Amino acid sequence: MALDHPPKPAGKDPLARLLAAAGASLDVAGVEALVRGVVAAPPARDPDAWMALVTPRPDDKLKHALGKLKDRAAAAADDGLDGRPSRPERLAALRGELARLGLAGFIQPRGDEHQGEYVARRSERLAWLTGFTGSAGLAVALADKAAVFVDGRYTLQAEAEVAGHLFERRHLIDQPPTDWIADNLPAGGKLGYDPWLMTPSQLVRYRAACKKAGGTLVAVDRNPVDAVWAGQPAPPISPAVPHDDAFAGAPAADKRRRVAADLARDKLAAAVLTAPDSIAWLLNLRGGDVPHTPLALAFAVVYADGRVELFIDRRKLAPGTARHLGPDVRVAEPAEFGPALDALGKAKRAVRVNTDTVAAWVTRRLEAAGAVIDGGVDPCQLPKAVKSPAQLAGIRAAHRRDGAALTRFLGWLAAEAPKGTVTEIAAAAKLESFRSANGEFRGLSFPTISGAGAHGAIVHYRVTDRTDCRLEPGTLYLVDSGAQYQDGTTDVTRTVAIGKPTDEMRRNFTRVLKGHIALATARFPEGSSGSQLDALARQALWRAGLDYDHGTGHGVGHYLGVHEGPHRISKLPNTVALQPGMVVSNEPGYYKTGAYGIRIENLVTVTPVDAPAGAEKALLGFETLTLAPIDRALVDLSMMTADEIAWLDAYHARVATTLAPLLDDATTRWLAKAAAPLA
Amino acid sequence: MALDHPPKPAGKDPLARLLAAAGASLDVAGVEALVRGVVAAPPARDPDAWMALVTPRPDDKLKHALGKLKDRAAAAADDGLDGRPSRPERLAALRGELARLGLAGFIQPRGDEHQGEYVARRSERLAWLTGFTGSAGLAVALADKAAVFVDGRYTLQAEAEVAGHLFERRHLIDQPPTDWIADNLPAGGKLGYDPWLMTPSQLVRYRAACKKAGGTLVAVDRNPVDAVWAGQPAPPISPAVPHDDAFAGAPAADKRRRVAADLARDKLAAAVLTAPDSIAWLLNLRGGDVPHTPLALAFAVVYADGRVELFIDRRKLAPGTARHLGPDVRVAEPAEFGPALDALGKAKRAVRVNTDTVAAWVTRRLEAAGAVIDGGVDPCQLPKAVKSPAQLAGIRAAHRRDGAALTRFLGWLAAEAPKGTVTEIAAAAKLESFRSANGEFRGLSFPTISGAGAHGAIVHYRVTDRTDCRLEPGTLYLVDSGAQYQDGTTDVTRTVAIGKPTDEMRRNFTRVLKGHIALATARFPEGSSGSQLDALARQALWRAGLDYDHGTGHGVGHYLGVHEGPHRISKLPNTVALQPGMVVSNEPGYYKTGAYGIRIENLVTVTPVDAPAGAEKALLGFETLTLAPIDRALVDLSMMTADEIAWLDAYHARVATTLAPLLDDATTRWLAKAAAPLA
Repeated sequence: MALDHPPKPAGKDPLARLLAAAGASLDVAGVEALVRGVVAAPPARDPDAWMALVTPRPDDKLKHALGKLKDRAAAAADDGLDGRPSRPERLAALRGELARLGLAGFIQPRGDEHQGEYVARRSERLAWLTGFTGSAGLAVALADKAAVFVDGRYTLQAEAEVAGHLFERRHLIDQPPTDWIADNLPAGGKLGYDPWLMTPSQLVRYRAACKKAGGTLVAVDRNPVDAVWAGQPAPPISPAVPHDDAFAGAPAADKRRRVAADLARDKLAAAVLTAPDSIAWLLNLRGGDVPHTPLALAFAVVYADGRVELFIDRRKLAPGTARHLGPDVRVAEPAEFGPALDALGKAKRAVRVNTDTVAAWVTRRLEAAGAVIDGGVDPCQLPKAVKSPAQLAGIRAAHRRDGAALTRFLGWLAAEAPKGTVTEIAAAAKLESFRSANGEFRGLSFPTISGAGAHGAIVHYRVTDRTDCRLEPGTLYLVDSGAQYQDGTTDVTRTVAIGKPTDEMRRNFTRVLKGHIALATARFPEGSSGSQLDALARQALWRAGLDYDHGTGHGVGHYLGVHEGPHRISKLPNTVALQPGMVVSNEPGYYKTGAYGIRIENLVTVTPVDAPAGAEKALLGFETLTLAPIDRALVDLSMMTADEIAWLDAYHARVATTLAPLLDDATTRWLAKAAAPLA
Repeated sequence: MALDHPPKPAGKDPLARLLAAAGASLDVAGVEALVRGVVAAPPARDPDAWMALVTPRPDDKLKHALGKLKDRAAAAADDGLDGRPSRPERLAALRGELARLGLAGFIQPRGDEHQGEYVARRSERLAWLTGFTGSAGLAVALADKAAVFVDGRYTLQAEAEVAGHLFERRHLIDQPPTDWIADNLPAGGKLGYDPWLMTPSQLVRYRAACKKAGGTLVAVDRNPVDAVWAGQPAPPISPAVPHDDAFAGAPAADKRRRVAADLARDKLAAAVLTAPDSIAWLLNLRGGDVPHTPLALAFAVVYADGRVELFIDRRKLAPGTARHLGPDVRVAEPAEFGPALDALGKAKRAVRVNTDTVAAWVTRRLEAAGAVIDGGVDPCQLPKAVKSPAQLAGIRAAHRRDGAALTRFLGWLAAEAPKGTVTEIAAAAKLESFRSANGEFRGLSFPTISGAGAHGAIVHYRVTDRTDCRLEPGTLYLVDSGAQYQDGTTDVTRTVAIGKPTDEMRRNFTRVLKGHIALATARFPEGSSGSQLDALARQALWRAGLDYDHGTGHGVGHYLGVHEGPHRISKLPNTVALQPGMVVSNEPGYYKTGAYGIRIENLVTVTPVDAPAGAEKALLGFETLTLAPIDRALVDLSMMTADEIAWLDAYHARVATTLAPLLDDATTRWLAKAAAPLA
């Protein structure tokens, strides 16, 4: 007969007493562990929201105690991303660990177990090791040399952030890591990789590179960076909350049925989901585990019978979330993810896994267990990308709200900038304050790009105290920003003349605008992909021998990632047909290094258009969603066709009419002029 | 001590006496075997050329005897492609063989060991089994059901050629064979495939399909169709001859050095070549083993030190070819190909193999032997595609010659067609006769598409005695044809109004023409791919709700395949940058089912163009190579911009000026009118 374990006496600790009084399920140690996760998540707009994970409605005393606990934890946390130990010490520690493991080297990519764009601080291993903080990159460390690989966007940043005497700095595409490995891995050497951080498609290339060097590629059980990173943050914890059906556009049960039917049609037993935005969409679930995108980090398996297993730290479930998920969603701890894959394998089932985006850990586990891997797309990707009419109504509302904030900012800028006192940081802060003024604002969808003059030519410029500068007369100012609202995610870029622009600036702005209009007014048959349309946005620039080195359009989520697939408008191949309801950006640009940058970005949604007489194909086009004036001072009318002028005038008229009810009088008066007809 | 083997007495057989007198290396049995290969190759323009394979300069008596031998062999050959046994008997025989092998079914693709577009009669297994004669397709035969899969081009043809009670007829893309296999392969069943006829990339999909059905995919040692095909032709034998350096643009030794350097740069020991056009390019070698493309079927391995092993039936080497190949090219029998792969594997060398285009037999053999497969592109593909200035000079000469023949034909057609007596077959024959009149002509580069009226709407229409019809007034006639010359390969399409066209025909022709001109005048930065340009050719059609269901442009070889990669202009993804010297077709079209077809095709070559002031990118454009008038009667001037009219007028002026010296007076007079300015 077993004795009941006596409860820890709550007497001494006031927090323990408060927890007990509130009937909280966690004890003090549990709350302390929870808080380590909470401070590892990005700051929430409501700093007390996490307390609902302790008990649904904490009283003021408990809130005060919990707040103090969190403040202490935050102060105590030293993740070392900004401070000690020194970079050479870190690299030496990693090499020591590699030697202990019998490895000749290790590949450390940026990115997390979900291969996401924004990651929790715990997953900033590349930044911790090398100092490089960009959103894409990779390091390879060998016993006697090491290298960091970044793409063209980040070359300058890597020069500034990474110590050249520790890491060679190489171009990710032109000087690929596979070549470097083939050249430098010693014969017989084992190169380690973390199977959680690399995809099966990547492994194929790295394995070949190792073989060329006479070595081998081997998976590690535990990431050696984690082993030497004292103070590495815990996995993030933020409340995982239901996303209201009214916003989501469809009940989660409907989505599960639809995905399940697709799996059954393809004769698959299940699909493994590791992309948190797919899970968020499927279950109408949102969280706050990473910056800028309302994600709850989790894994899931969706079965062809409509059931879902959600592998998530249960402590993240806010009150009501379990009920929202319902009986067909089994919530399990992340540690149960592997055994669930084993079960699929044991039954020799066919399982859909996107081998381009999933962690190799998943496919290795499935294969070892005997599953049949079906390497297709994540079954949530396409339905997530095609917004329903209800979602589109919300997205339009979000764009009115966001356009009003941006237009207030542009009016403010027109008044203030000529004084010569506005700086990049001040401008970005002002824009955020206009957005925050609306109670629906849920945060920025990405760090605002606020680039004056030459900074505008750095496509992914991120202003810091060190680089902050004033918007000077005779320059261009480029501001690329976006917001999260529960009814939609926005992303918009405007380029503004500060004072009088040069003729060259106006000519190049007009070329970019012509490309923007060519895409906005494009007509194309059903089945066309964004890759087919990309050149339309570049034609005017190409004729002048100019171009821009980024995509023309990316998909945008619905209160989810500001970048999402599967569609895009790019010169890179993409075979996904554009479908009505997809949202995508239209953002051609031009960048003169050291001088100025130009980008004009609106979000658009794909929409059916009336077919002309005799048409044999159903035609599609774009409806522009973003509402904010385009700087008329930068348009060279002599380069515009009558149709192009008509488009801009009609767009401006719509902007003015739609936003007027949302604006103060001064901004309305300014907008009337800013949006006046060109001709 | 060994005794010399006594020579077979030559006494009785007159052929034996003639062979002995000529000092031929072959005896009668050898010549008989040779002839079985000769009659399995397509007819050569010089029917006696093969005799040089017996002895360099046969005298008339020997030629007469050899000719008789060949005639007898041709008469005796019964490959069954057109006659007995009946289709049900063939399928039953195959099923018997499958049962004997313990197989539940077999996949029989169209295509040969080289994955080529045109194949020898020996490789027409799909046609023999199913009756389907198109250039792409696949059959799967199970014990109780079977299906033929063809793409949209061939749906109607498959309906006509394949017996529906034996084979389901399915759409290769919309109803893929993998789905059919997953549905129909019995659990536990083994589905056989011929590893010579499928690529590693294909196997991945088929293997997954079999697993879904609970079965497995297994390689066969010998193709079971071959086992039951009585009368299957021998491998083709035609003379493999040197391609003169003056035509080829560079000595073979230079090409070998270049490819070897590329391999060494990529740290590869060798590349395996199974595409005969790559081998033809690399070794400046041509042959006649398949229709329409001057190929000698062979395999090769090119090593990073510049050596080449050529695996070819030695009997195909014409006198002088071995000397042309030189000491760095080791000639070996095809049976030695496998052991050469084994040797690479044994040394654990890294070997370049294009896993999208090579026979799985090759990768299986390499992997089994221990080689490291590097799955990149065939290293000859890109240098083959980029023509040298010397090649381009030849190509321009070929186009003048070919344009003169086509223009004579168009003039003849203008005079004859109104009489209402010209038929599709007669027109195609007339066009070939004009081409043949030039001694440089080496044959058609593909079967002429000669489509009157509704036949013009069938993109790959091939006229037969059964379908032949007259060119009727009030219709359009579409003729797509090309020729092989030693200095170049041509491919051109013209659409001609027979009598008075309707306004609708003119409007749609003009839309196609606008697309053709948009591409012909495109400007694009270095690094752009054909996929990026494809939409330019479709814009005018798209705006009218029209389109065409084929690519806009394919690469063209130099006295090689009329279709070659790696570049193309297509809505399908292609990331190969267009480079100066590449040749590609510009062929937008429009097809009104049951009514008419329109296509305007010129070959163009990529060329640098002068950059405008302020340009930052090196710009490329196209030079049009094809020279023949475009039917002015089909142009609706009201739809054309001034720039478009100027382009057509300038093109026509160039056609008239360039061709005049090559034309008879009557054609010159006709051309003056056909090429007169529009405005």
